[in-house]
This record gives sequence, C-alpha cells and structure tokens, in this order.
Amino acid sequence: MRKNRTANATIAVTLDGVPLPDRDVLVSQRDHRFLFGCTGFDLVPFANGELTGEAAARAERLAGHWLGLFNFVTLPFYWGQFEQVRGQAGTARLRKAAAWFRERGHPVKGHPLVWHTVTADWLMDLPNEEIARAQVDRIRREVSDFSEFIDMWDVINEVVIMPIFDKYDNGITRLCREIGRIPMVRMVFDAAREADPHATLLLNDFDMSAAYECLVEGLLEAGVRIDALGLQSHMHQGYWGEERTLAVLDRFSRYGLPLHFTETTILSGELMPGHITDLNDYQVASWPSTPEGEERQAGEIVRHYRTLLSHPSVEAMTYWGMADGGWLGAPGGFVRADGSPKPSYEAARALIKGDWWFPPTTLRTDAEGRVRFTGFLGAYEVSAAGRAAAFHLDSPGESRAVAAM
Amino acid sequence: MRKNRTANATIAVTLDGVPLPDRDVLVSQRDHRFLFGCTGFDLVPFANGELTGEAAARAERLAGHWLGLFNFVTLPFYWGQFEQVRGQAGTARLRKAAAWFRERGHPVKGHPLVWHTVTADWLMDLPNEEIARAQVDRIRREVSDFSEFIDMWDVINEVVIMPIFDKYDNGITRLCREIGRIPMVRMVFDAAREADPHATLLLNDFDMSAAYECLVEGLLEAGVRIDALGLQSHMHQGYWGEERTLAVLDRFSRYGLPLHFTETTILSGELMPGHITDLNDYQVASWPSTPEGEERQAGEIVRHYRTLLSHPSVEAMTYWGMADGGWLGAPGGFVRADGSPKPSYEAARALIKGDWWFPPTTLRTDAEGRVRFTGFLGAYEVSAAGRAAAFHLDSPGESRAVAAM
Repeated sequence: MRKNRTANATIAVTLDGVPLPDRDVLVSQRDHRFLFGCTGFDLVPFANGELTGEAAARAERLAGHWLGLFNFVTLPFYWGQFEQVRGQAGTARLRKAAAWFRERGHPVKGHPLVWHTVTADWLMDLPNEEIARAQVDRIRREVSDFSEFIDMWDVINEVVIMPIFDKYDNGITRLCREIGRIPMVRMVFDAAREADPHATLLLNDFDMSAAYECLVEGLLEAGVRIDALGLQSHMHQGYWGEERTLAVLDRFSRYGLPLHFTETTILSGELMPGHITDLNDYQVASWPSTPEGEERQAGEIVRHYRTLLSHPSVEAMTYWGMADGGWLGAPGGFVRADGSPKPSYEAARALIKGDWWFPPTTLRTDAEGRVRFTGFLGAYEVSAAGRAAAFHLDSPGESRAVAAM
Repeated sequence: MRKNRTANATIAVTLDGVPLPDRDVLVSQRDHRFLFGCTGFDLVPFANGELTGEAAARAERLAGHWLGLFNFVTLPFYWGQFEQVRGQAGTARLRKAAAWFRERGHPVKGHPLVWHTVTADWLMDLPNEEIARAQVDRIRREVSDFSEFIDMWDVINEVVIMPIFDKYDNGITRLCREIGRIPMVRMVFDAAREADPHATLLLNDFDMSAAYECLVEGLLEAGVRIDALGLQSHMHQGYWGEERTLAVLDRFSRYGLPLHFTETTILSGELMPGHITDLNDYQVASWPSTPEGEERQAGEIVRHYRTLLSHPSVEAMTYWGMADGGWLGAPGGFVRADGSPKPSYEAARALIKGDWWFPPTTLRTDAEGRVRFTGFLGAYEVSAAGRAAAFHLDSPGESRAVAAM
C-alpha cells in the first residue's frame, strides 16, 4: 500500500529565495491527497444556523467528529427534495452548507444531478422532450450556481437499471427508456461539462456486475468523457472482504479511470438477510448498534480502508452517513445515535490521522538547505523562525519540492 | 398472435400469363416463414453416412421426427471440436451435414464462430495479437467455406461474461479482456460480414439482465451492425412462464432488431435446483424423463411457442436438442432416449403442422382468376390441371401475390 500512497520527499527549503542550510525546521502534514469522504447531509441544518439548544450542541459535536476524520464531503441534490415545487429550488441553503465545508478546506461533491429515484414528481406531467429539457436546465443551473464551492458531481446515478426500473413510474425512467442509456448519459454529461469545464464528473452505480462494465465500455466507445467511476458499496448484508473488493477493483480499473468507492456502509449491528435484493425492502422497527457489532465494524472498516488504499486506481472513498439512524435506520455510522463515537471512529482515526499521517516533526536541513522524509501524499507545511511555506506531495515514489518561506 | 403471423391473402392465379377464372385450384402451405428451429448435432453422423445397423435405423427415425416438426437447423462450429489440431478443420463433415438440411429446403445456422467455452486450446500458446488473427482467419474461412449452405451465424456467444470468465484460462477471454467487448464484437462481425455480406449475423447471449441491454446499446452506439439478437433460454430450472418471457421480449425488442429465441430447453423430468447459477455445475448420474414431467413439458412448450409467436419481434426459436441425453444428460428433448416421441412432440406438431398450417385446400378462383384465404405466413403452392406455381405470404394483414403457372 505504501508504495502507492507515500512519497520519499526531498524538500528544498528557502527563506526569501535563499537556501536555508543546517537549520531545524518543523514539517507538518496538513491534508491527505486521498479523499477520505463522508456525507454531510446531517450538517446542512447546522451549517445554516437552523438549530438551537441541545440540537445545536449535538450538531456541533457531530461537526467536530466529522472534521476530526474526513477531508471530503458529499451533499444531497436529490431533485425531488431540492426542487419539490417546480421553480422553488433549495439553492441558498445548500450553498451555505457547501461554503461551510469549503471554508474548512474540504472539497465538496454534489450527489446526484440525475437519478430515477427521489426525482421530481412534477416531471410526470411533462412529455419526454420537456423532461429532457428540464433535466438539462436543472444540471446547468446547479453546476453554475455552485461552481464556486462544488467541483465534483455524481452526474448520473444507477444508469444500469434506469430505463427498466419498475418499482414506480417516474419521469427519468420514461425518458431513459425512450432515448437509451448512452444518449441519456451523453446528454447530461454534456450539460454538466458545459456548465463547468473544470469539474470532475462521475458516473455512479450500485451494480458491480458485468452490466456496469458493459455500460462503461459502451460510453467510452461512444466518446463520452467520464472523469471517475463511482462504485457504490452499501454493505448492509455484510462486509465484502478483501477478495471481493479487490476483484471489483480489478474489473473496474481496466478502463484506466480513477475509481471512487462511493456510498460505503458497514454495519455495527445485525446484518440484513442475504435474500433481500432491493435494500429498501428491508424495514425493521429497531436496528440497534451492538457491542459485538461495533468491534466487528471497527475491524472491517480498517480492512476496507487498507484494501482500497492498496489499489492504485482508488482516489476516494465516501462513507455513507457518519451517524446512526440514517438510511433504513441502519447502524452504519461511525458515531452512535447518542452522538458518541464507536470503536470504528477511533480505529479509522488511528489510520487516517495516525499511521498514515506525518505528525509535526522537527527536521534539520542539510548543507544545501534540504530536508528528506517519507510521508503520505498530501498537503504539507514547513515552518521556521515564525515563517511558513506550503508544499504538496502529489505522486508516490521519489518526490522533490520547493518550500519557499 | 394471428394478427402478427397470418395474412389475408388475395392470390391472382394465371396460366401461361392469362388469368384463370372460375376454376378449382389446390392451395397448399409448403413452409412457415417463422423459423421453427432445432439443433441438428445428432444428425451429423447420419448425414455423413457414418452409421450402420441399428444406429443407422435409429438415426433415420430421428431424422424423420426432425423433418416432421422443424424447418431451420443449427449446426455445431465449436472451435475446440471443429479444429482440435490447428490446421485440421472438420469442414468436409459439416458441409455434408449442412447440405443434407439444405437439400430438404431448410436454412442452416452455424453456432458459434467465437466463444470462450469449447474454444481451441492451442490459442493459449499464442500472444493475444496472434489469437486475434487466428480468430479472424477462422471466421473468414468458415463463413466462406460454408457460404453455399449457411447464411446465418451466431457470430459471437456470451460476450457479457467473455472478458471476466474465470472458470478456466482460455485464449478468447484473454483477448477480450485486453481489447474490450465492443472492439471484440466489431472485429469478428466485420470479418464475418466481409466474408459473406448477405449472411444474417447474430449476437447471442444467455444473460437476460440489464448487462446484455447495456452491451447491445453500446454496440449499436458504436455502429456495429447486428442483424438479429439471440436470446438463450435454457429452462432447466423451470419454464419461464408468459410474464417473464414477455418481459424479456419487451426489454430486448426496444432496439428494433429481430429477436431469435435460441437454445430453448424445457424439461420433462425433475428440475434443476434454483440455487445453481452455472448450469454446468449440475451433474447427476441419471436424469430420467417422467410421465408427469412429459405432460407438464408438453403444456409448457405449447405455451412457449404461443408466447413467442404473439410478439411481433420474434422471428425464430431454436430448440436445443430434439432427443434426450444431450447437454448435461437432461430430459429436455421432444423425443425420449429410446427414440419415441413425447407428448411435447405431438403437441408442437399439432400447432406447427396443424393449427398454424394451411392444409391442402381446394378453392375456386373468382371471375378475375383470384382466390382469397387466410393463412400463416410462409411458402405456398397453388396447382391445377397438372401445373403448379409457388407464392409467398411474407407480411401480416392484407397481402396480394401472383401465382403464375
């Protein structure tokens, strides 16, 4: 894993343009290059100052936990919630939430711009041609309105089943069924790309079978430019284990695209029975986190992070819900419903801000003013004599940089 | 069903170019337009005159049963059997078999030109570039060598799993994994098309999921011309029923391509347990046909033919093995291991050569020399006064033709 994730750095430290030989300098890691992501849905009310009293205090603790572990956030753009009434978009509120994370230095991803689930009900009143126009307009609007804060989008979600989704009627399935998957993806990627040529645009799916491979191959052959592939990984029926995870990575890394493990959930309670195929079908009155479940979860989360970082194609992982009580009420969080961190939180932190983190370290520059060290890829700072300079380690192996104080 | 499959025919009968009014003429159906197909693997030794004694007599009865029901044959071109030793192709033997069916008026399909299973073992000694060359050469050779007898090919089989097939190493999976599914299909379709521009070229798969849809959509977007889609339908775990069959037809008819139901098997004995995913994994010492199984099979086969013919996109059905004791030893035939026809044979015959067949019928031409009747689409003959003329009913609804005796 370290060969993909760490650099042997040689940093030339200068002060006012002159090398600084034989001096003690303090080197600290500021951020990871790997995107250790999590949803920030819970924190939208807090970032908007909507909470008071105990709710505000609880949210503040949650925010503290979030910031203590993650460096990348996903915010919710489900059309049916974002614009429940046509023309009344929830832009202002999400801009505040996005700004909150950006001010703290964390990149923000919007999820999703197109999906047949939780899409706008009012699409069903429109003919397909107008659904297409409304969808494209919505993409242009959101990508433009948020370009200051958001430079990554799950453009379209679950295309594999999109045209054959049969749980309920919806405008997006109707449209995709008429025009086909590839024209649908091309249309919405074109709209997003045009609205922000610098954004990172993802295709995201839960289908890890050959179907997703076939879709990706078709899109690439058709010349649709995809910046990264999103691989959902809700593990409500049990941790996948190293073998299955690596097999998935092996199959989807064939396309030379960066891989993002999106929507990862690993439970700290009872597992959902294996015969359930649509996770939404599983409804239980109470789904508690248990002490044994929490120990298991902590071990599995460590194994999962290690496995993902061992594969050079993986650039991001997004955990789906930091606190319990989210989707399906599942005990999938790093934090219990009462706000206390589980062992998984501490275990993940021991990796991300421990084993994989270069702590503030005093190093002595050599006769040419250089320091050498090995650290995880990411953002660093060197400081001495009340001055400081930033530098980045962006690629594994031997790496040289200048830190000009 | 009849609206898709029958014509209200008006036939202008002429004798030496002159209309033949007020005359009794005999109208007979000669063939169906629908391809009621079956494999002819069992009949290859017989067509080659390789059998003697009881084996020959048995094969002759089997041939009689075959000809009594079907009008379209599939012959085996599995590369690993056809050319077990490089350069020693079994061309002559299969040409005799193909000729035997053609002489009896039946179109012949070759199956398959490309497949990762039962492919030539000697490919594994070659680098991928040479595997590609050998594969293309083999396609050109077979399609050319058989162009006199074969005008339909399952060009490539099971592409959905081809690059990720992991049961055993083989040259075709290696190649497909390197170049991708769409380039693989394009390469082999181009080779077949070039060798016989008039042949009907099929893509064939057992995967009826969204994966096959995604593959087809990708191929069509990439401009690969596919003449018909083959949908495998081994029902060793139970008859699909009307609802599932129609759902499959509904999904795959979206591409505007003719559909061929290929490799249909419906058992007359115990069903394979549902938990088996690769049918090849089911090995039993004895798998008998039973009286109850035979009654059930007959009913299901009738329902299956009716369902397929009710959908306008379906142009062919190929039953996979007329006699028991074929693939997996399953009791999937229309004929028992002892050579006697099962109830399914009689039931299918009662449709194909009964309810759906226009029997020899005396009709009287009108004052302009025309006869009118309603019949299933296909080839017909009209005869009178020792003369005869052929005509075809090719499209449903009102249909006019001239029968020039």
